[in-house]
Amino acid sequence: MNASFKPEATATLLQQTEQLSESVTRPIPGSRKIHVGGSRPDLRVPMREIALTRTPTVFGGEENAPVTVYDTSGPYTDPEARIDLAAGLPALRAQWIAERGDTELLPALSSEFGRAREHDPKLAAVRFPGRPLPRKAAAGANVTQMHYARRGIVTPEMEYVAIRENQRLEAVRDGGLLAQHPGESFGANIQKIITPEFVRDEIARGRAILPNNINHPESEPMIIGRNFLTKINANIGNSAVSSGIAEEVEKLVWSIRWGGDTVMDLSTGKHIHETREWIIRNSPVPIGTVPIYQALEKVDGRAEELTWEIFRDTLIEQAEQGVDYFTIHAGVLLRYVPLTARRVTGIVSRGGSILAKWCLAHHKENFLYTHFEDICEIMKAYDVAFSLGDGLRPGCIADANDAAQFGELETLGELTKIAWKHDVQTMIEGPGHVPMQLIKENMDKQLRECGEAPFYTLGPLTTDIAPGYDHITSAIGAAMIGWFGTAMLCYVTPKEHLGLPNRQDVRDGIMAYRIAAHAADLAKGHPGAQVRDNALSKARFEFRWEDQFHLGLDPEKAREFHDETLPKDAHKLAHFCSMCGPHFCSMKITQDVRDYAAEHGVDEQAALEAGMAEKSAQFLEQGAQVYRPG
Amino acid sequence: MNASFKPEATATLLQQTEQLSESVTRPIPGSRKIHVGGSRPDLRVPMREIALTRTPTVFGGEENAPVTVYDTSGPYTDPEARIDLAAGLPALRAQWIAERGDTELLPALSSEFGRAREHDPKLAAVRFPGRPLPRKAAAGANVTQMHYARRGIVTPEMEYVAIRENQRLEAVRDGGLLAQHPGESFGANIQKIITPEFVRDEIARGRAILPNNINHPESEPMIIGRNFLTKINANIGNSAVSSGIAEEVEKLVWSIRWGGDTVMDLSTGKHIHETREWIIRNSPVPIGTVPIYQALEKVDGRAEELTWEIFRDTLIEQAEQGVDYFTIHAGVLLRYVPLTARRVTGIVSRGGSILAKWCLAHHKENFLYTHFEDICEIMKAYDVAFSLGDGLRPGCIADANDAAQFGELETLGELTKIAWKHDVQTMIEGPGHVPMQLIKENMDKQLRECGEAPFYTLGPLTTDIAPGYDHITSAIGAAMIGWFGTAMLCYVTPKEHLGLPNRQDVRDGIMAYRIAAHAADLAKGHPGAQVRDNALSKARFEFRWEDQFHLGLDPEKAREFHDETLPKDAHKLAHFCSMCGPHFCSMKITQDVRDYAAEHGVDEQAALEAGMAEKSAQFLEQGAQVYRPG
Repeated sequence: MNASFKPEATATLLQQTEQLSESVTRPIPGSRKIHVGGSRPDLRVPMREIALTRTPTVFGGEENAPVTVYDTSGPYTDPEARIDLAAGLPALRAQWIAERGDTELLPALSSEFGRAREHDPKLAAVRFPGRPLPRKAAAGANVTQMHYARRGIVTPEMEYVAIRENQRLEAVRDGGLLAQHPGESFGANIQKIITPEFVRDEIARGRAILPNNINHPESEPMIIGRNFLTKINANIGNSAVSSGIAEEVEKLVWSIRWGGDTVMDLSTGKHIHETREWIIRNSPVPIGTVPIYQALEKVDGRAEELTWEIFRDTLIEQAEQGVDYFTIHAGVLLRYVPLTARRVTGIVSRGGSILAKWCLAHHKENFLYTHFEDICEIMKAYDVAFSLGDGLRPGCIADANDAAQFGELETLGELTKIAWKHDVQTMIEGPGHVPMQLIKENMDKQLRECGEAPFYTLGPLTTDIAPGYDHITSAIGAAMIGWFGTAMLCYVTPKEHLGLPNRQDVRDGIMAYRIAAHAADLAKGHPGAQVRDNALSKARFEFRWEDQFHLGLDPEKAREFHDETLPKDAHKLAHFCSMCGPHFCSMKITQDVRDYAAEHGVDEQAALEAGMAEKSAQFLEQGAQVYRPG
Repeated sequence: MNASFKPEATATLLQQTEQLSESVTRPIPGSRKIHVGGSRPDLRVPMREIALTRTPTVFGGEENAPVTVYDTSGPYTDPEARIDLAAGLPALRAQWIAERGDTELLPALSSEFGRAREHDPKLAAVRFPGRPLPRKAAAGANVTQMHYARRGIVTPEMEYVAIRENQRLEAVRDGGLLAQHPGESFGANIQKIITPEFVRDEIARGRAILPNNINHPESEPMIIGRNFLTKINANIGNSAVSSGIAEEVEKLVWSIRWGGDTVMDLSTGKHIHETREWIIRNSPVPIGTVPIYQALEKVDGRAEELTWEIFRDTLIEQAEQGVDYFTIHAGVLLRYVPLTARRVTGIVSRGGSILAKWCLAHHKENFLYTHFEDICEIMKAYDVAFSLGDGLRPGCIADANDAAQFGELETLGELTKIAWKHDVQTMIEGPGHVPMQLIKENMDKQLRECGEAPFYTLGPLTTDIAPGYDHITSAIGAAMIGWFGTAMLCYVTPKEHLGLPNRQDVRDGIMAYRIAAHAADLAKGHPGAQVRDNALSKARFEFRWEDQFHLGLDPEKAREFHDETLPKDAHKLAHFCSMCGPHFCSMKITQDVRDYAAEHGVDEQAALEAGMAEKSAQFLEQGAQVYRPG
């Protein structure tokens, strides 16, 4: 797939893309897709409902209501949905966008490069068929969600995310499931119930973003902000040494299956434009990119030949395809570049190093910085959000929290204010490699410098010494910084620093990050965050194995692991587990304690301490035989 | 192997055990075993020295001194060592123990059970051949390291651990490698250099333990305490549904290969006594057990039939085999048991549930509590350390930090003081499942209640919702609690809650915990903790791929992952990596920045800001072509 596509490859490509492998689309075990309605018939928020079995009689025999969980997987896991990659997903937001009456359909792509690709007959084989005309803000209009929010408007997108964030918490009746420890939110403003108005106010304030390009009407709205559930991003992308279009679409579907809230397409190579189109048309989650990568390809990899004009055309090209957020390394200032010279690992961000090279070559200020307001004009015409890149992030523990990193962060704060002046939604990228004791300093400085704009961090990795396991070195830092206030965590796979992630690596990376994000939500005290933990632990205690699998983040892996030791189906009903075997079952013994306490009351301390031999005899008679027949 | 061993099985068993598979004994790539001498010729502390290659000329061309790292793997990874499992490891501490003149060789095993096993001809096939006579304190003597420490004696064991903890830091000359961020130790007393006297004082104070039973002279001394490097424990053990002796020895060797500082043998089943003997005789690391498991087997699994006499005989049996620390659930008091009745997951500790059942059945106080001083007498006669078990630890997020858990912890504090009165070394076991915001409360309470006795925690798991990934849910909690002051982290494998770990699970669990422990050491600011991070990151920056692999915690996995994408040997010298491909290499661009800064000075801000076109032209000429030929 690295060689250029030849016409005869078309059929193969389309065949591949129309036939997503079953492994990425099979329904998630034990659950079904549901839709929660909003104030209008076309506002239907997808969730996943996990059905639970009845508690065994020995533990009480009660019904267990289904548990509803957040679902990023789009229609792909819905057996009702008809998937046709060459047609793309339904444009569920098209009507909402059109209704606002502040956009216009363009007669053609505005980007010169985009038009050239559109009309190149050699690309027919790889081009997404029948892409719609692009849409753009009408002259003088600003179509960002932030702009609407600041004018007091609650958009359908805002209502959608409010419903989505609540995860049907209001439907949970079982007080036991709702029980949860008080959180420590470090100043976050955690709500009991998320209202559409709260969503609006957070976006207006710049404390959250709702990344939804008007040219990506297929997307299911989601929100990124410290007062909402912690989100995760998965990166996909080929590279010079790998993959093609069909594979990239599968990677997208695979990533959202496991819980990617957004996906960044970091592809490079010959068909970057066409790959992106396929991805966006088939993506229910916001797509982010780093436009400088493509711009650099347009100048054959010679950073010093980059110009504002080439970059600008790239931004427009991608904005009209529907990219939802752009990483823009506008904070890599000329004066910060030499500060990296004495670092152990210098500049490790690709974007950062490209711009550093440009700055040195021209001895001029970074053109992304000098053209920042021009970029804002483009962003607000399509509602693309900024992800202000941390081009000078530390690439190792030694370089953490240094002058270059923090200098750039201060500049990102300055740029945030400019973006907000234009009502452009903005988040801020963060490190990188940071030892635990320096993580909070990063978060606090980001909140302070950037006025609480959402922080979007890569990890951070808390040590450098475990290549092959950096999903774990970084999940530790990610959980902590998520707790402290980071709004979205960019995943790291086990292959980080070593190679390109394969499918298994992507799944492992996403799982590590869903764990980090959820641990953060629990610690912050998001209402209802503990429901799933409580439901799973109750199932675990009651040996409802299937329910335990289904409530887990990865039901397939849980079952597979269980079956390695106890493969027989009968064991899924067994009232013991393989760790202890049929003897020593502590869960069973606990049930004795429970029976005992129910009979005698849990607070009869005086009685207990008196040590009534008669009760002891009773217990021996009634309950000491733990393994009752049946 | 579950069926009883038949005589004809002997040959097979011995063959298996004498031939450890190469996968567990092959040398660790890129490094060699070294020994650092102490004050006497028989005091030789093993370490692992990682040889590094020269920096490529383009990055400076300097030599890179070897890096010394802590090594738990014993003689198994030493190609010079002759391994004969049926002979056991050399008794390296035998002379030190004998010299102290306070012990005597017993004519026979003191334990009735032990003697019965010794003389049962049916067990000849599985019995470790030629085990030495047991040793015990002479009448009236106390042979604990704590006892010596409190009398001001520095034992060879203490000197050994001082040398070991320092990891030859004094030999590191490169200031760059020594650079490190200030730590936050939360009141720990972190030393620049560990002296034997400091080791002694910490043991005397009860703040550290040196678990080394006089009947386990094969062990390489190590120390567990908050002012030393954070340690990890790996559990091995069969169960009713699995494995046999040969497998268990391999598991031990496998666990210490990857970095287990101690190993707990949690075996149950028919040959628990014989399995333990094989393990101890071949273990260079301290071995811990939970004697109540075996005691329960002696009463056919009927907890209510347990007696002090049976338990006492079990303690002596195991102490004379050489077990270095015992988990004793003496804090599960009768009055705490009903407090668990309303929990979501009740009592999840096997030991805790056994004792809870006993308490309820007899309506009496836990016999481990009432006989605690009797237990101390046994511990001090062999120098077995207490690991005071948290039988009421929470088994889910909902149950964290509740009255049962904290009540037991208070009792463990009371017992610590009693143990210390007898100069018995003591550590305290901790949870379990705890959300991030409640972790520090655990640590602070433990330090307070238990007078800074070392804390030894299982995880904690920071969420319940990821069965299949609990090495990660718990590594997050482990890193944090390690930072806050936990001395040893008990690993959790991916199979936790689902099944028995296989070899790969053990490796994954250990790696997750070595990461957690090291991240904690970095955050606490242990001197030299960052050397390995710095050396690895320098290698990474300079594309010294082999060095990067070798400096990693798992060199084999790192190489394997790298080779999946770029399998050719030539690529290990490539000055680019597979993530970015031959274009966009940010490391290379950084080198340009470095060259530039070296030439122009890093602080010439004024000059930079003036924007000298002439310098820019120079740079274009000299450096803008990043990918120099060759």
